[in-house]
Amino acid sequence: MQNSEKRSTQESGNLREVAIIGIGETRIGELWDQSLRELGINAGLSAIKDAGVKGEEIEKIYIGNMSAGRLINQEHIAPMIADYAGLDDIPAVRIESGGASGGMALTEGYLSVASGLHDVVVVGGAEKMTDVGDEEAKKILSSTADWEWESVFGATFDSLYAMMARYHMFTHGTTKEQLAAVSVKNHAHGALNPNAQFQREVPLKIVMGSPIVSDPLTMFDCAPLSDGAAAVVLCPVDMADSFNKDPVAILGTGMGADHMAVHDRRELDAMKATRSAGDKALSMAGLKPEDMDFAEVHDNYTISEIMAIEDLGFFPKGDGGPATERGDTSLHNKIPINTSGGLKAKGQPVGAVGINQAVEAVLQLRGEAGDRQVEDAEYGLIHNIGGTGASAVVHVLGRWR
Amino acid sequence: MQNSEKRSTQESGNLREVAIIGIGETRIGELWDQSLRELGINAGLSAIKDAGVKGEEIEKIYIGNMSAGRLINQEHIAPMIADYAGLDDIPAVRIESGGASGGMALTEGYLSVASGLHDVVVVGGAEKMTDVGDEEAKKILSSTADWEWESVFGATFDSLYAMMARYHMFTHGTTKEQLAAVSVKNHAHGALNPNAQFQREVPLKIVMGSPIVSDPLTMFDCAPLSDGAAAVVLCPVDMADSFNKDPVAILGTGMGADHMAVHDRRELDAMKATRSAGDKALSMAGLKPEDMDFAEVHDNYTISEIMAIEDLGFFPKGDGGPATERGDTSLHNKIPINTSGGLKAKGQPVGAVGINQAVEAVLQLRGEAGDRQVEDAEYGLIHNIGGTGASAVVHVLGRWR
Repeated sequence: MQNSEKRSTQESGNLREVAIIGIGETRIGELWDQSLRELGINAGLSAIKDAGVKGEEIEKIYIGNMSAGRLINQEHIAPMIADYAGLDDIPAVRIESGGASGGMALTEGYLSVASGLHDVVVVGGAEKMTDVGDEEAKKILSSTADWEWESVFGATFDSLYAMMARYHMFTHGTTKEQLAAVSVKNHAHGALNPNAQFQREVPLKIVMGSPIVSDPLTMFDCAPLSDGAAAVVLCPVDMADSFNKDPVAILGTGMGADHMAVHDRRELDAMKATRSAGDKALSMAGLKPEDMDFAEVHDNYTISEIMAIEDLGFFPKGDGGPATERGDTSLHNKIPINTSGGLKAKGQPVGAVGINQAVEAVLQLRGEAGDRQVEDAEYGLIHNIGGTGASAVVHVLGRWR
Repeated sequence: MQNSEKRSTQESGNLREVAIIGIGETRIGELWDQSLRELGINAGLSAIKDAGVKGEEIEKIYIGNMSAGRLINQEHIAPMIADYAGLDDIPAVRIESGGASGGMALTEGYLSVASGLHDVVVVGGAEKMTDVGDEEAKKILSSTADWEWESVFGATFDSLYAMMARYHMFTHGTTKEQLAAVSVKNHAHGALNPNAQFQREVPLKIVMGSPIVSDPLTMFDCAPLSDGAAAVVLCPVDMADSFNKDPVAILGTGMGADHMAVHDRRELDAMKATRSAGDKALSMAGLKPEDMDFAEVHDNYTISEIMAIEDLGFFPKGDGGPATERGDTSLHNKIPINTSGGLKAKGQPVGAVGINQAVEAVLQLRGEAGDRQVEDAEYGLIHNIGGTGASAVVHVLGRWR
């Protein structure tokens, strides 16, 4: 709507309020005994069951997925997953935006309900990263950077994010201990999450002493590449009472963009796409960063979380590292970040991440997050990045009273 | 809205009327001198120029693409194309549903404007099929069938569609001459389209005598695998007057689905997904098949066009072959089908096809289709299939007065 002042449109779009009424996810990990379609079905059916919705009530399915074509030789996965879930009559489409595929799928699902075209819609995310081996999986992940101008010359995700980390350290004095503090915190949170890939605390000493992947990033600065799936069920808020659970409203959605290749960006210590997506989503919700009771941010690397909590307005630029070290982003403190464990500890099934984040936010807003519950959580934000930051998407969720 | 009688929702979604105000496409063919990003940019910038829209007015970009990950080692292509078009501030997302990726992207673009969230949106489609060689391209195309249950055992697109053709011949008496008549007609139409890959007429004798690909389908029963891109610009109808060209309205959109694997389907001589998508789109537009002045249907094989014109209600089941032989589907006759040349002669840049179809429909409805103009065309339908029919999408377009 940003240009509405320039060209006039008489009709005002009447966006309906949209709620998440069901959630489901698989445990995340190296799930060699389950195929992509099984993961997708398990998450989807859990969400449908959680909502208490009947299969024939679902009008459309969206599935976020980064690279099933390369990872399991299968494109066109959305109808495949729908079919094997017994929902072969329901149109299904895949949304892809690298690591932001899940969040972008949530936006499309939101639009399809907000517009009034559909009432009950399922949005899932699924990825099977581990069947091809770690080297190949990393190569495929790097194909969401600019292949012709970055990856083909040997730049990996690890090295591109390491450059950002180095620059952030140089410009703002961020330390390796502060990067490590992100990892320690997210592992502590993950230890409280029964669906997390890594469910144990990791002390600072271990993180600091772990092998260098791409200086200054060590093994514990990098999220794993994982298998997993997650799903949510959406419907208009005023229809939500007829289902099982208290609705959680999608109050705002925003997308941001940037140059594809890191070398074209104007900033290396910040992500323009994140800032833009966050501003749009919060503005649509009529809320501010300080109104958020928690956030799930895209910590594919520890430096990513530090940049995100700055770019989203939770902390001033340069204070992300110190804030983490102070404990401001830990559970029960100022603004708990990644209570789920984040990509670092909950795991990184790439195209599913955005939906895993939505699942965590709904658990928090329902008060069902168990040992990692944020007290009286009313509003939360979820933030999902594609590539090395060429795309980002943010949603603001809230309890519906 | 199909379930609105079961669960009540007070707010009625207020879909805005949406228009296509700009179109652009590349020539289709074996374009070895252009990369995917160049194709995408060329189509997109043509569409923007055609509309007379400024870059900064665009609020979102959708790109339909089947398999850039496997074809050119690049996922996350939507922000890449936006970036290289100088639109790096504009959020861009990829939509994938095999061969129906373009049409599905058009649906998402439509929703983003109809909902009121965005005003000016660009929807493109792009595919680069020829850089990997014909064998590999066919293998990748076959990954939009069910890889684990069909393709891995050697079933190709050619053989799966050949089975449908054989069954259609057995059940309805469709002949090889009737299949060939589709190809002859589409080549005749393609000869009138300066963007078509094949711009010459091919006589029945040549089609009938061409080498068998998968019996009964010959080389001329199969569409080529091509490079190409296309784009359209969307905005609310009531804003369209401030741009260059007469708007063409999107009057209806519908998606359909079916089992992923052909062996799970209840019908082999018809596509349930097509029927369902067509019914929904026509019903939303408040129109009937006989109201259409032309249609672009997904003729990846000649048998596909015959099934489509039956399943969309232009002809009774079994009459698709005879109708084509009678000339009913030729230019200037009863219901001209694939005036562009269709996938057979215009070419098949897989993920772009649905947008190429939209471009042809807009040309016809504007009266800009030159030698292949349908007289006084008021309404047209476009039909796009994913895989072997597990997904389908139909749009009904019309002149806006």
